[in-house]
Amino acid sequence: MTATVDRIGALTGQMIIAGELVTGTGDIVRGIDPATDETLEPGYAHGDTDDVRTATAAAAAAFGPYRGTSSAARADFLETIATNIEGLGETLISRACAESGLPVARITGEVGRTAGQLRLFASVLREGSWNGARIDPAMPSRAPLPRSDIRQRKVPLGPVAVFGASNFPLAFSVAGGDTASALAAGCPVVVKAHDAHPGTSELVGRAITAAVESTGMPAGTFSLLFGSGRSLGTALVTDPHIKAVGFTGSRSGGTALVAAAAGRPEPIPVYAEMSSINPVFPLPGALATRGADLGTAFAASLTLGSGQFCTNPGLVIGVEGAGLDEFVSAASAALAATEPSPMLTPNIAASYAEGVAAAAQSAVTVGRGSSSDAPNRCRAALFSTDAQTFLESTVLQQEVFGASALVVRCRDAEQVLAVTAALEGQLTATVHADDTDLDVAGRLLETLELKAGRILFGGWPTGVEVGHAMVHGGPSPATSDSRSTSVGSRAIERFLRPVAYQDVPASLLPSAIADGNPDNLWRRVDGELTRD
Amino acid sequence: MTATVDRIGALTGQMIIAGELVTGTGDIVRGIDPATDETLEPGYAHGDTDDVRTATAAAAAAFGPYRGTSSAARADFLETIATNIEGLGETLISRACAESGLPVARITGEVGRTAGQLRLFASVLREGSWNGARIDPAMPSRAPLPRSDIRQRKVPLGPVAVFGASNFPLAFSVAGGDTASALAAGCPVVVKAHDAHPGTSELVGRAITAAVESTGMPAGTFSLLFGSGRSLGTALVTDPHIKAVGFTGSRSGGTALVAAAAGRPEPIPVYAEMSSINPVFPLPGALATRGADLGTAFAASLTLGSGQFCTNPGLVIGVEGAGLDEFVSAASAALAATEPSPMLTPNIAASYAEGVAAAAQSAVTVGRGSSSDAPNRCRAALFSTDAQTFLESTVLQQEVFGASALVVRCRDAEQVLAVTAALEGQLTATVHADDTDLDVAGRLLETLELKAGRILFGGWPTGVEVGHAMVHGGPSPATSDSRSTSVGSRAIERFLRPVAYQDVPASLLPSAIADGNPDNLWRRVDGELTRD
Repeated sequence: MTATVDRIGALTGQMIIAGELVTGTGDIVRGIDPATDETLEPGYAHGDTDDVRTATAAAAAAFGPYRGTSSAARADFLETIATNIEGLGETLISRACAESGLPVARITGEVGRTAGQLRLFASVLREGSWNGARIDPAMPSRAPLPRSDIRQRKVPLGPVAVFGASNFPLAFSVAGGDTASALAAGCPVVVKAHDAHPGTSELVGRAITAAVESTGMPAGTFSLLFGSGRSLGTALVTDPHIKAVGFTGSRSGGTALVAAAAGRPEPIPVYAEMSSINPVFPLPGALATRGADLGTAFAASLTLGSGQFCTNPGLVIGVEGAGLDEFVSAASAALAATEPSPMLTPNIAASYAEGVAAAAQSAVTVGRGSSSDAPNRCRAALFSTDAQTFLESTVLQQEVFGASALVVRCRDAEQVLAVTAALEGQLTATVHADDTDLDVAGRLLETLELKAGRILFGGWPTGVEVGHAMVHGGPSPATSDSRSTSVGSRAIERFLRPVAYQDVPASLLPSAIADGNPDNLWRRVDGELTRD
Repeated sequence: MTATVDRIGALTGQMIIAGELVTGTGDIVRGIDPATDETLEPGYAHGDTDDVRTATAAAAAAFGPYRGTSSAARADFLETIATNIEGLGETLISRACAESGLPVARITGEVGRTAGQLRLFASVLREGSWNGARIDPAMPSRAPLPRSDIRQRKVPLGPVAVFGASNFPLAFSVAGGDTASALAAGCPVVVKAHDAHPGTSELVGRAITAAVESTGMPAGTFSLLFGSGRSLGTALVTDPHIKAVGFTGSRSGGTALVAAAAGRPEPIPVYAEMSSINPVFPLPGALATRGADLGTAFAASLTLGSGQFCTNPGLVIGVEGAGLDEFVSAASAALAATEPSPMLTPNIAASYAEGVAAAAQSAVTVGRGSSSDAPNRCRAALFSTDAQTFLESTVLQQEVFGASALVVRCRDAEQVLAVTAALEGQLTATVHADDTDLDVAGRLLETLELKAGRILFGGWPTGVEVGHAMVHGGPSPATSDSRSTSVGSRAIERFLRPVAYQDVPASLLPSAIADGNPDNLWRRVDGELTRD
């Protein structure tokens, strides 16, 4: 049943549990090339709750030694994973393209982003502020009571369960953002692969496993399981060894995981990124001067990657008039000229078609992409409605995953603000404003700050820069925990908690809070930031 | 039904909703002096769900303007609250002593701590790092794609519900740590007063309301409600305007609030501080040289304030032998000599007696305080058992709120570590170690870091320093969210979330992330901390 992982790049259809190849005993799934409906070998047998228990027990056993490694050692580990993934080259790119239907350029870019994320967290580890080091020195002669020496640093939460996302088979899957930030924090990771790209998952899982071995990390630091979300996924989230969860997927899937985690004897944090329609606000001045240009550019963002981005702009809120008409006309023309591209899976394509059909019942269709006889194609759709209808419709406020958007026509700027105030939480909100729009834009910004994780002026929300200032998050239902981001260096904070050390002997203090600042960290001493 | 709040120091038995005095329509509760069972006037009529709706709607209306105030203005507001509370002087101290049975020195100290907490958060606001300001400057010529200008700051979550704690009628009640940190973050606060000290709550509520008025904050920034936890409390936590909850109390109460919040259409964070038995580890070397002294000092910490601290040391884990025997003998002698003091309420005294009786069924009684015919007295209790019995007993692992503790006798240091590994999450863990104990202490520390929010070497856990490095928190069931602290300056982070601003025009950028750093903040620019 088990064998050592030896060849990076091989595909055997097996899970990887703490460095061992394990064949599942459940249903067998295969990748499907959605562009052709061709089935891809090998088959991947789903694991069961025993596999979950083995993986989480190994993760729990690895946790102590893994979190005991130095920041520099974990940085090397992350960089080795990045190098290994890049080293998969064409093998990885061709498999990921075949399993996702995404074009080579996109997948090539995603390999770069995935490696870049791992290296970003390596740099975060080397910089060291993630420790959150604070020292309140003793005041032995303070009256009426002396003050103890109190120091604080952050420690990792424990083993983390990561659910691979379908729409980023690399950057938010097996070695994606959640895995990178959890491993950086010192948390072992157990990944549940997404059935949409099992071969890509195995390739990347082997790249991580090879890095675990070559950098001398404990074997249980990483495991890769295949299985159904409902059974294996739930078993993973409710396993007592698991201390946090990272998830990107549907609102129903995320909500179920949040409920499962909340029902544990020991509830744990779930970072579920779920649902966002990413409103776009072309303001009247901008529409008057460049309504058609904005409409064309909007259509390009809407159809990018068949609209399968979490940040896909699915809602346009504007004041009715000639400018908005030009925006819609130009967008419709661009959609009609857009070649339909395959969606990630047959299921996603079917759900998209259903969502579009439902929207067509509730709003006016003002644009469609060209149709295609090829399988699983995304035929883009643009709808229009008035503000009152939108506010009264639950259907129209829901995300349709794919290149479908709705234009909400408002009477005036006040109605734009009223519609905005009624929106659910969002990952992004995009404002297009000219100088004449700045008064309205300022009022809009005040509301958007409370609705979205990222606010753009100009540009389009698809494409998320991976840096220090990025926020990919937002109020419910965009995510289940708005206090956090899944993209960018702040994501490491999700998997940490603070601990205070009172009068702990110098020989036992962690180096981050030791006397003399041996790690050369920025630390808050008596409330003041210093590197002394 | 309503009247303007005019006199600080007056007691009318009314709630305060956005600056208006409102008389409830429900059950009437009165404070009780637990030292004498005397009932205290006036009566306080419980509010209902309409009162909740009025208060939360006012808080929601206040949120925009309140969060729009400057950090300096909010700092002034917090300092004014502190001054107003101190200005209540004897009126407040005598009422809080009467309602709690706590001695004057303790209540006087708690007034000082409460004012100190408010001033600490004022200093946090003036220092400004709470903004979490980050800037990744634009790179217009980056290839293959230019980088946008991306900036990040934190914004408040929205109106916060705070549940007053019985055991800190000032420092963790109406103007306590949760209220201070939420107000500092820019969140309006709706407090549900604890029925154990309604008069103290009204006095402090008026002091806050006077500060709201004199510093020109919006009226809905603060409201004070009386009501039952089950009905009014649940209505508050499930109110759509409420965006976070702070609670200190029982495990059952906290668990119910967490479940109510998780069941909302939009789940919200609940910071519930619930249950901790705060293990103490007198290691063999320390026991050999000073077992009796440690036992005496332990008894003093155990009985402080009738043992009614969240950090009360309810568990001693030691290796059996002469040193541990001396520890227990000295502790028992000290308990026998301790004058029994009143508990906070008749209900708490009754629960304590039940908890002690249950423990006596499962372990050997090795020490009791003297008995008393006066009402509601806490008769301290010390029990002893072996490690195996402890590990198999759910009764013995539960908190008994009050001056009751259990000594767990282990065969050797390995068994100490095994028992420690089986403990639930704790607020604190205290190690007494001599130089000969440092090997064991180091291994113990590794486990304790994952079990507790604060680890002490020497000293006793009762008494929590309010500073920058303190952590008052810990894994479940100590709290419902270990990523946070309820004491110390980091508590402001509970009520904030990050927002990214991409290419936002300079004229619309918040000052925290504006060009030229007008607020003179430490900011992370391209990942590097700087004040430029």
